[in-house]
Order: sequence, then structure tokens, then C-alpha cells
Amino acid sequence: MAKGVFITLEGGEGTGKSTQVKMLGAALAAAGLDAVMTREPGGTDQAERIRNLMIQRDAGNFDPLTEAMLMMSARREHLVNKIWPSMEQGKWVVSDRFVDSTRAFQGYGMGLDQGLIDRIYQMIAGDFQPDLTFVFDIDAEKGLSRSLKQLAVTADKNESTEDRYERMGVPFHNRLRQGFLEIAKRFPDRCVIIDAAQDIATIHGQILKAIEARFGISLREVKLG
Amino acid sequence: MAKGVFITLEGGEGTGKSTQVKMLGAALAAAGLDAVMTREPGGTDQAERIRNLMIQRDAGNFDPLTEAMLMMSARREHLVNKIWPSMEQGKWVVSDRFVDSTRAFQGYGMGLDQGLIDRIYQMIAGDFQPDLTFVFDIDAEKGLSRSLKQLAVTADKNESTEDRYERMGVPFHNRLRQGFLEIAKRFPDRCVIIDAAQDIATIHGQILKAIEARFGISLREVKLG
Repeated sequence: MAKGVFITLEGGEGTGKSTQVKMLGAALAAAGLDAVMTREPGGTDQAERIRNLMIQRDAGNFDPLTEAMLMMSARREHLVNKIWPSMEQGKWVVSDRFVDSTRAFQGYGMGLDQGLIDRIYQMIAGDFQPDLTFVFDIDAEKGLSRSLKQLAVTADKNESTEDRYERMGVPFHNRLRQGFLEIAKRFPDRCVIIDAAQDIATIHGQILKAIEARFGISLREVKLG
Repeated sequence: MAKGVFITLEGGEGTGKSTQVKMLGAALAAAGLDAVMTREPGGTDQAERIRNLMIQRDAGNFDPLTEAMLMMSARREHLVNKIWPSMEQGKWVVSDRFVDSTRAFQGYGMGLDQGLIDRIYQMIAGDFQPDLTFVFDIDAEKGLSRSLKQLAVTADKNESTEDRYERMGVPFHNRLRQGFLEIAKRFPDRCVIIDAAQDIATIHGQILKAIEARFGISLREVKLG
């Protein structure tokens, strides 16, 4: 399978991941690379339907294991119908969140056992892993306040708000932040920590440099907009 | 936990399970027992939302493992929020389908490994098992024709039709039937095979007798109404 490249961006809310996914996609395309930009939970029609069950405001509270199972169901769908077929065609696949988010949110955030999460992941994905993971790190309060500001903009546009995790408060988001840092320590070969308090262009430059170093390609920075 | 009793009814489509669940509920209530009648996939609001993702006509095709994971997610929700709390209160819980349906549909029907299904079930339920399972057995073509007739009635009422499995055809439903019989062989202590070609009152009487024998209680037959 692994002809293509799989890169994931991970981290708490309000770390600016989504902006960086867009800029990275533009930089890969400008270099003539066939890049698929995607996200989790979601990434396919069916997986987006599972996403809607979970993260919208009216989703209510699932048991943490139910939530992890739903996330893994959506992930399986995403792998089978988008990530793996794209990689077989030699494409670059960049995902805004992947399994490390389950480890952080349902594991470190909600207390689900990491070994159990690993076993479920092994069932749906075998030994498959991202080739490179950027872990966006930011002070929990700063990230939350950024994320809530972003949600307010979205709500103004009358779109449905996905603010379930934001409403879980600072202690939850502190556990999340520490969790992501633990994950980066556990998988040092594929994880690069990004200081998400830096400005957008600086982060973009760091991401491109890390990709160049890892895959021996040359990328040019793009401007936002 | 296991102060209550957990009884499941399993089998292919069109075997008359749902009618028997209603009659059994009435018989338990008439005997003064506190009985909770439920179904899978579903049984709680959140689990019913997962059900809707899967079995309605527009659900499309999930990967069999995704489908099993979704079923287990809904089952976990059902266990945590309905089955286990009801049993802790000493209630009788009767479910129209449970884990044997995943073994039959996603396993025998769609080819998913039985060991994998067992491992996922173990994660969400530990060693928990039904106390008694009725396996409704009927010729696949006869069951399908009954089920489609029933669906036509439902469609007339402008309700959304859940006919995804019915459309999978006779060979699928033959595998399903053989699968349920294999399951009954594998779990002889809890499984009782019911010949679903018999008339409704006869089946009702057999179910009550099996429950009386197993749990040492006395139940009186009820009429369908």
C-alpha cells in the first residue's frame, strides 16, 4: 500500500491546525504533488454522518468508550474509502486530526485506557501509522479563547456550531494538552511538536522544512488568502 | 450487577420476533414482573441515532468492520444506559436482537471474522452474556417474503423503510440462517431454537415454557391484541 505519504496534524482546539492544513495543501499542489486534504472525524460522506452524531451541540454525552468506538468506526470508513486508496495511487494525504486525537480526547481527556484505544485502533488499521505528525501545542486557555472566537464567527453565518469540546472547560483542555505532549514522546519518530503560539507564516515555514527534511523534497512557502 | 434477567430474541428477518417480544412483555407484566422491552440496534435515543445511520434505505454500504463497530458502539450505549441499569434494579430485560445478530449479519452474512467480533464485544461488554436466547429459525425465502410484506405495510403508513438487509437477497439470508444455527450450537447453554414457521400462539407457549423451566417462575399465556 504505502506508495503515498500520510501526514497528520494534531492538537487541541484553537491551535490553528486547519489554517495550516490549507496552506500545506497549497504548497504541495504548487510543487506539483497530488495532495488530498482531509479531516477527522469525517473525511467521507458516511464518516461525516458519524461526525455529526458526535460533535454537534445537541450530541449529548456518550460513554467515553462508545465515543471512541464511534470515532474508530468513522476512522475505518475514512481509511478504507479515502486514505488507503489515495495512498495506493501514490498521493500525499494530509489529515486534520487522526488517531492521536482519540488518544488525547477520549484517553487523556475522558479517562479511557490507552491500551484499550490501541487495541481498537489495531483492529481497524493494523500496523498502519502516519509517516509524519505535527503536534500543535498551545496554552489551554489561549487555545480555548481562540477556538470560541472562531465558533462565534461560524455561528454568525448560521452554520451549526460544533462546540461540544469547547464547553468542557479549562481542566479538560489542560489534560488534552498534556496528553498530546505525552503522545509526541511516545512516538518520537513520527511526531514534531509545533509551538502554536507563533505566527501563521512562521509555523507554515517550520512545517515545510520538516517535510523537506523527512521526504527529501523542495517546497515553497505560500501566502494565506 | 446481575440481579435482573436478560433475555434476547434473535433470528433472520420475517421470523416474527417482534410480535413475540410484545406478547412476552405482556405475559411478564401480567405475572407482576418489572419488564423492560427493548431492541437493537437502538434501545436508547443515542443508539437509535446510530441505528438510523446504518439500516435505513439511504444508508449506503459501510465496510463490514465499520458496520460491526457501529453496531458495537450502539450496543455499548444500550448496555451502559439501559440494559445494565435496569438489571441492577432487578428488572427483566428482553431485547429484540443483541450481539448474536452482529455475529450473524456482519460475521456469517458479510464475512467478518467471528474472533474479531468476539474481541470487540469483549471490549464493550466484558464477560456479560444473555441469560437466555431464543433463536428464531425459518426458511430464508419464507422469512424474506414475510418481511417484505411487513415492510410494504409500514411504507403505506409513510414511515421510513428499513429494508437494507431485505434487499441483500436469498443467498445472504441463507448464510444468515445457517449462521444463527451455528451460534445456537456454539452457545448451547443459553440458546433455544424456535421453529418460526409455527403459529404465533404455539411459539408464545414454547417461549413461556422455556422461561418457566429456566427461571422457575409461572407465566400465563396472553392473546395478541
